[in-house]
Amino acid sequence: MPTDHPACSIERTLEVVGERWTFLILRELFGGTHRFADLRAKLGIAPNLLSTRLKTLTAAGLVEQHSYQEPGSRTRESYHLTATGRQLRLVLAALQQWGDENRPRPSGPTCVRRSRRTNRPVRVALLDSAGREVALDDLDFVRTDQASISTVSWGRRVR
Amino acid sequence: MPTDHPACSIERTLEVVGERWTFLILRELFGGTHRFADLRAKLGIAPNLLSTRLKTLTAAGLVEQHSYQEPGSRTRESYHLTATGRQLRLVLAALQQWGDENRPRPSGPTCVRRSRRTNRPVRVALLDSAGREVALDDLDFVRTDQASISTVSWGRRVR
Repeated sequence: MPTDHPACSIERTLEVVGERWTFLILRELFGGTHRFADLRAKLGIAPNLLSTRLKTLTAAGLVEQHSYQEPGSRTRESYHLTATGRQLRLVLAALQQWGDENRPRPSGPTCVRRSRRTNRPVRVALLDSAGREVALDDLDFVRTDQASISTVSWGRRVR
Repeated sequence: MPTDHPACSIERTLEVVGERWTFLILRELFGGTHRFADLRAKLGIAPNLLSTRLKTLTAAGLVEQHSYQEPGSRTRESYHLTATGRQLRLVLAALQQWGDENRPRPSGPTCVRRSRRTNRPVRVALLDSAGREVALDDLDFVRTDQASISTVSWGRRVR
């Protein structure tokens, strides 16, 4: 990571994914849509925007291109999440859960989170180093010595 | 929630917070910065953009305005997270954790997540309905009957 990138991890993440379309493209890639034309049709996104966003995600190592060819057609590219990109599944799940809880629809969610292995419902939560669940209002963001602005906890001042 | 909003919870969330500046404004509000001039100075954001983003967050019920007055000055507004806005702490923590792991800096993170109560490190994770941790690659997004496109699991097709 070059030194001219922001010190804050949230900000470095948003350099790559901080934009509405990007999260929706990631949602479609997770959902098994990999071809440019299909992504464009499912999202209703302008081709130039889709192309720009895919280039940013590819340059950052979240997406990789594969070539494919259908009979009678030229070779085309499809887009796939890398291991790094797949780690964003937790962020997408957290966004989805917040939407379920804070912007619900009368007819209920279109999509639920489950364990493949056990089929049990799954939620995003906080765990401490002993594996115990931590309540959301018990979470503190504590600045380290690496923080240039201040070494005090800024979480404590949250209302 | 009006019926013309998108069916997908991720998309409904991004209607309010799907933009780089918005997450950074939320970060500052969590960190105890509440005045327009302070937000503007800390973020280096153009005043018209900051004003627009704060209006969107206020209209969606994530932020509320309080009036304050300093000696010799006119009454001004400060901006504070509502209970709904504070729920986004989990999304910010997930963004931060992804940045720590996938876009690290040589000097380490500027901010770590801890429990206020126990001071133990805290991470964002997945829990099933029995309180057991679920591995990230065991997470499936399963479409419900409310999904208009298809009732098949789209998680299963993830590579």
